[in-house]
Amino acid sequence: MKAEIIAVGSELLTPFRQDTNSLFLTERLNELGVEVHFKTVVGDSRADLVAVARIAMTRADIVILMGGLGPTEDDLTRECVAEALGIELHRDPEIITELYKRFAERRMKMPENNTRQADVLDGAVLLRNPNGTAPAQWLQTNWEGDRRYLMLLPGPPQELKPLFDSQCLPRLKEVLPPQFISKRVLKVAMGESACDARIAPLYTKVPNVQTTILAHGGEVEIHLQSRADRQEEAERRVEELAGELEEELDDCVISSGGESLEQIVGYYLQMRGATLAVAESCSGGMMAERITSVPGSSRYFLGGAVVYSNELKTKLAGVPAKLIAEHGAVSREVAVALAEGIRERTKATFGVGITGIAGPTGGTPEKPVGLVYIALSDGKDNEVVERRLHGDRERIRLWASFTGLDLIRRKLI
Amino acid sequence: MKAEIIAVGSELLTPFRQDTNSLFLTERLNELGVEVHFKTVVGDSRADLVAVARIAMTRADIVILMGGLGPTEDDLTRECVAEALGIELHRDPEIITELYKRFAERRMKMPENNTRQADVLDGAVLLRNPNGTAPAQWLQTNWEGDRRYLMLLPGPPQELKPLFDSQCLPRLKEVLPPQFISKRVLKVAMGESACDARIAPLYTKVPNVQTTILAHGGEVEIHLQSRADRQEEAERRVEELAGELEEELDDCVISSGGESLEQIVGYYLQMRGATLAVAESCSGGMMAERITSVPGSSRYFLGGAVVYSNELKTKLAGVPAKLIAEHGAVSREVAVALAEGIRERTKATFGVGITGIAGPTGGTPEKPVGLVYIALSDGKDNEVVERRLHGDRERIRLWASFTGLDLIRRKLI
Repeated sequence: MKAEIIAVGSELLTPFRQDTNSLFLTERLNELGVEVHFKTVVGDSRADLVAVARIAMTRADIVILMGGLGPTEDDLTRECVAEALGIELHRDPEIITELYKRFAERRMKMPENNTRQADVLDGAVLLRNPNGTAPAQWLQTNWEGDRRYLMLLPGPPQELKPLFDSQCLPRLKEVLPPQFISKRVLKVAMGESACDARIAPLYTKVPNVQTTILAHGGEVEIHLQSRADRQEEAERRVEELAGELEEELDDCVISSGGESLEQIVGYYLQMRGATLAVAESCSGGMMAERITSVPGSSRYFLGGAVVYSNELKTKLAGVPAKLIAEHGAVSREVAVALAEGIRERTKATFGVGITGIAGPTGGTPEKPVGLVYIALSDGKDNEVVERRLHGDRERIRLWASFTGLDLIRRKLI
Repeated sequence: MKAEIIAVGSELLTPFRQDTNSLFLTERLNELGVEVHFKTVVGDSRADLVAVARIAMTRADIVILMGGLGPTEDDLTRECVAEALGIELHRDPEIITELYKRFAERRMKMPENNTRQADVLDGAVLLRNPNGTAPAQWLQTNWEGDRRYLMLLPGPPQELKPLFDSQCLPRLKEVLPPQFISKRVLKVAMGESACDARIAPLYTKVPNVQTTILAHGGEVEIHLQSRADRQEEAERRVEELAGELEEELDDCVISSGGESLEQIVGYYLQMRGATLAVAESCSGGMMAERITSVPGSSRYFLGGAVVYSNELKTKLAGVPAKLIAEHGAVSREVAVALAEGIRERTKATFGVGITGIAGPTGGTPEKPVGLVYIALSDGKDNEVVERRLHGDRERIRLWASFTGLDLIRRKLI
C-alpha cells in the first residue's frame, strides 16, 4: 500500500512555516505497513489543489489531505477534492445544527461562511473534531478500478493528531492486513559516526530489524523496528538486536526505553536517595535548566550557582581566589573546586562543576575555545574530565552540560 | 514565475527526517519575485522520481531538485531528470579528473561508482560544489514551448546553501526582471493574538507591505516586506509601516533590527555600564542560560543562583527563612527577596528573582500551576510582577524567563 500526504495552505509555501504533521502521520502509517511515497505541499489555489488531488489519486492507495477545512473563502479542500474526484458535495444538516449551537453557546452570531464546514463529499463519513469546528472526512472510493482511501483532516496538529488516532487509525486497521511490529529506542552517549562504526557489524546478526541512527541535542538515538508475521517474532528480533547493541555499547547506553539523559539521572538519584547541586561557568545555567526540565526534579535537585565572574566563583561556590589566580578560571583545579564547593555549601550528595571557554572569543593557544573541564565530587572522591569540544558557542555549551549529566549517570550506574 | 521545489530521498519519507532546505530556497526565490507553488518530497525510486520531475515541468517555470546527486546506486536524480526530459547524459572528463585527484590527495582509491557524479545533462552548466563531491547542475530548456529553469542541487544544507547563493542566484537574477525589495523584522513582547488585534487596523495605512506575524520561544515577530519599482520606494513603505507599528506598540517593541531579547538586554546593560545577577527557582537556570547564550555576556552578567530548595534560597540568595515560612516560597515577598539578595551578594547593578510553580504538580487552589512572581531590584526600588502562565512545564519556564528578561529591558529603555 502506498500513501501520499498532501499539506494544503499558502502559509506552508512561505519561508516561515513548515508542515510537521506529516512526520506524525508517516509514523502511524508505517506502523500499519503503509509506506509514504509522496509528500506534497500546495497553496490555497483552486486549480493547483484540484490538480494535486487528481495526481495523488493516480499514484497512491491512501491519500491524506491536511488543512483547508476552515470556514473562509481560502478553505478549498472540500470543493477541490470533490471536483478532482468528479463527485458532489452535500450539506450535512446535523453539522449545521451543531455549528449554530456552538456559536450560540458562546453568545456569538455564526457568520454565514461557517456553513461551508458542513459540506460533505458524497459517500464520505464525517469524523467529529472535538478540538475544533471543522469536521474531518473519510471516503472509500474507486479510481480507475482501484480501491482508494481518502482522508480530509484539519491542519492544526492539536486537532489532527487525536482525530487521526481515534477515528482514522481504527478504520485503516479494518481495511489493511494486520501488522505485527516491535520498536525500541536506545539512547547513547557517544558521537554519531563513532556509534555507527561500532554497531554496523552487529546489524547483520539479527536479520529483518530496521535500524536508524539519529543525533540531536548531544544524544544519539538508535531506533530499532521489526515487522513479522507474529507479534512475538517481531519482539524477539528487536529484543535480540537491542541486547547485542547494549552489550557492545556497554556503559555508553543511556536508556533503552526512550528516556532522556536528564530523566535517567533523575531516576538514579532518586533510587539512591541522593541529591545534586551544580556550579556552572561556561554552560551558564544550561545544566541546571536541563535537570529542572524534568517534572519532580525538586526531589533530587537542590539548585546551583551560575558563576560567570571569578568573584562569584569564590562567593557562591567557595573556590579560593588563590586557586583561580594560580591555575586560571578554566582549569582542572577550578572545576574540582567548583564541584566540591557547591556540594559543601548545599550539603548535596553530589556536586558538579563546569568551567570552560564557550567562545567565539576568549581562547588562547594554551586554552582554546572549546576547552572545558567538568568535575564531579561526592565528598570523598573527585572525578574530572577534560574535553576539547568543537562547534559554535551553543554546541559547546550543550556538550558541556551533556558531559556533566553523563558524568553523574556513569557514577551511579 | 512559479517555482516547484522537489526534495529527493527516501529518508525524507520516514518519521525521522524532514526537508528544511525548502524554507531557505523559498526565502531566496521570494526575494527574486518568484512564488513557490508546489513542494514535493519523493523517495529514491526511479519510476516515482521520473514522474515527479515530469509533473513539475508541466506546472512550474523554475524547478529545483535537491538530493540524489551522490555516487551510490540510490542517487538517481541525474538519470531520472534526463529520462523525464527526454535528453541524454554525458560524462564530464574534467570532473572525473577532479574526483580522481580528490581521492588521490587523501591516498584513497576511488570507487568506480563515483564517476556517476560526473554525469551531466546535455545542455546543462556544471556548478562546482566546494563543500562536497557532487557538483550541481543548471539547465535552461524548453518544455512544450515554454522556458524552464532547472536546478539539480546537493541535499546537505551546508553544501546547498552556499552553492545556491554563489552560483544559482546570479544566474536567476540575469534571467528574471529586477526586484526591489525591502524587509524588516520587529520583535515584540506581547501575545500573538493581542499583537495581531492591535496592529491589524494599521496594515491598511501603508499599502503594499506584506506582514506576517510569527510566534516562537515567547517572542512575537512581525515580518514586513515590500516590493516596488524602485528600491527607495520599497524601503520608504516598510519604514513608514514600521514607524506606525512602533508607535502603536510602544514599549512592547523589543527590537526593530532582528535582535533577540537577550541581545537587547545585553546592549542596554553595556550601554549603562551596568551588571546583572539572577536568582531563579521555577525557571531552573533558564534565564541565566538565555543571557549567557549571547557571546560576550560575561561583560555584564556576573552569574546567579538556581535555588530550587528553600535552604538554598536562604543560603545562596540570602532570603530570610522566616519570610519563606510566612509567605511561602512562591510569593511576591520571596521574589523581591531573591532579587535583592542576589544583587547584594554579587554587587551587581540589577538583581532579578523568579519564583513560581512550573507544574505539572505542586499547584493548590490559592497557588495554581503557572503562578509566577518575577522581581527586579536595583538597590533602591523593587518591581515585582505576578503572572498566571498557561501551558505545560516547558512553556511556563520559558515565559517566566522571558518575563524576567523583559522586566530588565523595560527598566533600561
